[in-house]
Amino acid sequence: MAKADIGLIGLGTMGSALALNIAEKGFKVAVWNRTTATTHEFAREAGALAANIVATETLEDLVAAIDGPRAIILMVPAGAPVDQQIAALDPHLDPDDMVIDAGNANFRDTIRRMTELSRPFLGIGVSGGEDGARHGPAIMGGGDPAHWARVEPILIAIAAKFEGSPCANLMGENGAGHFVKAVHNGIEYADMQLIAEVYGIMRDGLSMAAPEIGKRFLQWDEGRLSSYLIETSAAVACAHDEATDGPLLDVIVDAAGQKGTGRWTAIEAQHLGTPIPVIEAAVAARNMSAQRPLRADLAERFGGVDTLDISVETLEAALTCGKILCYAQGFDMLRAAAVAFEWSLKPEVIARNWRAGCIIRSAMLDDMAAAFEAAPETTLMAAPYFADILTETIGALRATVIAANGAGLPVPAMSAALAYFDTMRQARGTANMIQGQRDYFGLHGFVRVDSGAMDQHGPWADD
Amino acid sequence: MAKADIGLIGLGTMGSALALNIAEKGFKVAVWNRTTATTHEFAREAGALAANIVATETLEDLVAAIDGPRAIILMVPAGAPVDQQIAALDPHLDPDDMVIDAGNANFRDTIRRMTELSRPFLGIGVSGGEDGARHGPAIMGGGDPAHWARVEPILIAIAAKFEGSPCANLMGENGAGHFVKAVHNGIEYADMQLIAEVYGIMRDGLSMAAPEIGKRFLQWDEGRLSSYLIETSAAVACAHDEATDGPLLDVIVDAAGQKGTGRWTAIEAQHLGTPIPVIEAAVAARNMSAQRPLRADLAERFGGVDTLDISVETLEAALTCGKILCYAQGFDMLRAAAVAFEWSLKPEVIARNWRAGCIIRSAMLDDMAAAFEAAPETTLMAAPYFADILTETIGALRATVIAANGAGLPVPAMSAALAYFDTMRQARGTANMIQGQRDYFGLHGFVRVDSGAMDQHGPWADD
Repeated sequence: MAKADIGLIGLGTMGSALALNIAEKGFKVAVWNRTTATTHEFAREAGALAANIVATETLEDLVAAIDGPRAIILMVPAGAPVDQQIAALDPHLDPDDMVIDAGNANFRDTIRRMTELSRPFLGIGVSGGEDGARHGPAIMGGGDPAHWARVEPILIAIAAKFEGSPCANLMGENGAGHFVKAVHNGIEYADMQLIAEVYGIMRDGLSMAAPEIGKRFLQWDEGRLSSYLIETSAAVACAHDEATDGPLLDVIVDAAGQKGTGRWTAIEAQHLGTPIPVIEAAVAARNMSAQRPLRADLAERFGGVDTLDISVETLEAALTCGKILCYAQGFDMLRAAAVAFEWSLKPEVIARNWRAGCIIRSAMLDDMAAAFEAAPETTLMAAPYFADILTETIGALRATVIAANGAGLPVPAMSAALAYFDTMRQARGTANMIQGQRDYFGLHGFVRVDSGAMDQHGPWADD
Repeated sequence: MAKADIGLIGLGTMGSALALNIAEKGFKVAVWNRTTATTHEFAREAGALAANIVATETLEDLVAAIDGPRAIILMVPAGAPVDQQIAALDPHLDPDDMVIDAGNANFRDTIRRMTELSRPFLGIGVSGGEDGARHGPAIMGGGDPAHWARVEPILIAIAAKFEGSPCANLMGENGAGHFVKAVHNGIEYADMQLIAEVYGIMRDGLSMAAPEIGKRFLQWDEGRLSSYLIETSAAVACAHDEATDGPLLDVIVDAAGQKGTGRWTAIEAQHLGTPIPVIEAAVAARNMSAQRPLRADLAERFGGVDTLDISVETLEAALTCGKILCYAQGFDMLRAAAVAFEWSLKPEVIARNWRAGCIIRSAMLDDMAAAFEAAPETTLMAAPYFADILTETIGALRATVIAANGAGLPVPAMSAALAYFDTMRQARGTANMIQGQRDYFGLHGFVRVDSGAMDQHGPWADD
């Protein structure tokens, strides 16, 4: 029997889907799971694809079933389980065998593992949920180009395609793939929050019913906002609940969960000193949503909100504007990370990668890829195509935030986007006051505008 | 010769000031510095206080000069230097001798050191800058009550007093003192940013000159906003620049520095899952301020801003409102940390501690102490005294944010405060949309409003 082209450990939701995807593309995949029954059940249910699946019961068997030099994908929970799995697997491998962590690893763990492990290692971020993993995810790789090349044909085959172009790329060195995936998820949080805020304005400010809102999202999905998340939001808003014979959206509790990747993005942005206020606002909004009893108390104490008057077209333009500003922050953060971690990240490659397969896939990402191809060093705010859209839509974002604030409807992410725009286009900011304060109480010194002289102090320094 | 009551290592700005403060309060302090010349120079310049100072040239001499069981304060740069200093000192000490890290340590390092070191150890945060250290800082301690008790008389003597009550408290176990200090600094960032935004509105929106703005700050310092930071801002705005014969504030470059403690607060809030959007906005604003050339470019591209019409009294009320909301977030974070790290933090003790000596000292903190004394578990938003002020001033914050947004003037921290208020007083939020989206693409499940049933899925789950 011919040996397998690749191995895969961990047959959970994502691992199973990925293994079936590999098998379907004509590659033979040897699989192993901690619970052997799961492995056999997986093979049994693989149907016609079973011919390309080798179910193994021990790590020895798994390794023996794969053609060398081997490549084995780990799809186990992030953190300690990955280290434990590597430790268990390592003694069975040949020196040139490669381990690929395709889980949701923190990129710092990926860097550590690459340093610790004296064998080929790739860290790849996989986005698209179960459906993506099964039929075509976005694959963001990090590691050595020679190692990537060994599995590239398989990764390209299983990846999503955007107009024929595969969404599987080596993003950069060591932890770059998992880092890019984390920023993807941070942007995902922000994109979702911006949509939720617009939904809130339509629901509470314009008294629109959920299916009516869903219909608008469907229309928007035909235009500049066309994206998987708008399509998702349309489906969610249109869904019918049989139990209440009303909109499903109205019976879903308003407390959002999170698995922590948005939080990682916010933490790394702090380390990098790069501003991503829209993403931060989105993470904070999820944390606030969890405090339901307190919100109910405070609603009683501080009273309700008002309706408002704004057109749905204005909301569409506001969302477009907020989205561009949020992506601008995400790409700026990636650029800062490339410098800090000495990665050869290319924004145009990242934008192209995100065009299909992943959760934030959208038409707009194709335009972002084009913008970065023309000028990789630019912020999206300054890229001509997007600067024009910002000029066209900033008034709508401004009007929306003002109207929502006037009615008392919360728009934390849209507010953060507007504040970001206004801060970044202010030539003379107000941090001179902060530098003055810091010098007053801490003698931190300031720089003079006229002479450029550094370490200047106010008259209080002589006290 | 009588032995010293306490030792101090590190005669930099803060260490020197603290040693003089100790000597002045009648305690004998033995000092040592890595550079011996600095030690002798310090003793020479101590004047009348020299009688209470024992200058030592070696760590052996330092230890020999102190009465046992000893207590030695470290005032060396945070991070590796602290570990190195402890390692160098440790062999000379008796088992019961105590080390006190009074530098700007990350509280996680303090926890680690207490675990590693088999001797009494305190981590204390000291706030108030050089002037505070010299004449009365706020001292936030962390560690064992028995260890704290050994040095409490000295710490109380040197600390700032608020109406006779000393600002030196054991905040809680192990790293609690350094943690409380970090949150203090996070609030400090936010307080400064809120003031800077109001300054910006007066400067750009109302075309007021710096001294005129300073005069308003002086007036505000007589009212509810009375605080060291308003006093500081008044002094900064009123300062005259001889070189230009104009306001000093106008020649200070608008790029703010930071030493990282605001960033730590933002990072720890992410780990705790507690929303502190005003502090995050303040940290982000400092990061944005550093991008001066880009801001100049974008100002040209996107055009300028407008003046606006708002009364200075409204701005005063808006600042009051924003400040309360920012402090509410800071205290909520402290409460979350108390649970997560099993600290016996008491918000009323923290508020009392911050009333004098530290950078954010203010009249309002006395009212906060009273509010928490009445109800330690409450958020400030719900404390009757502050709820009343919020009810009175939220309209001013709303009007200010709307006016600034209308004129294109950036108000990131005030916007974040308003969005926080509106989010926290919304009984039915919009996170049902986010939970719907998460279930659609990731089958994460949602909870039903009506039945409370968990792990529910939309109709897409059967696809």
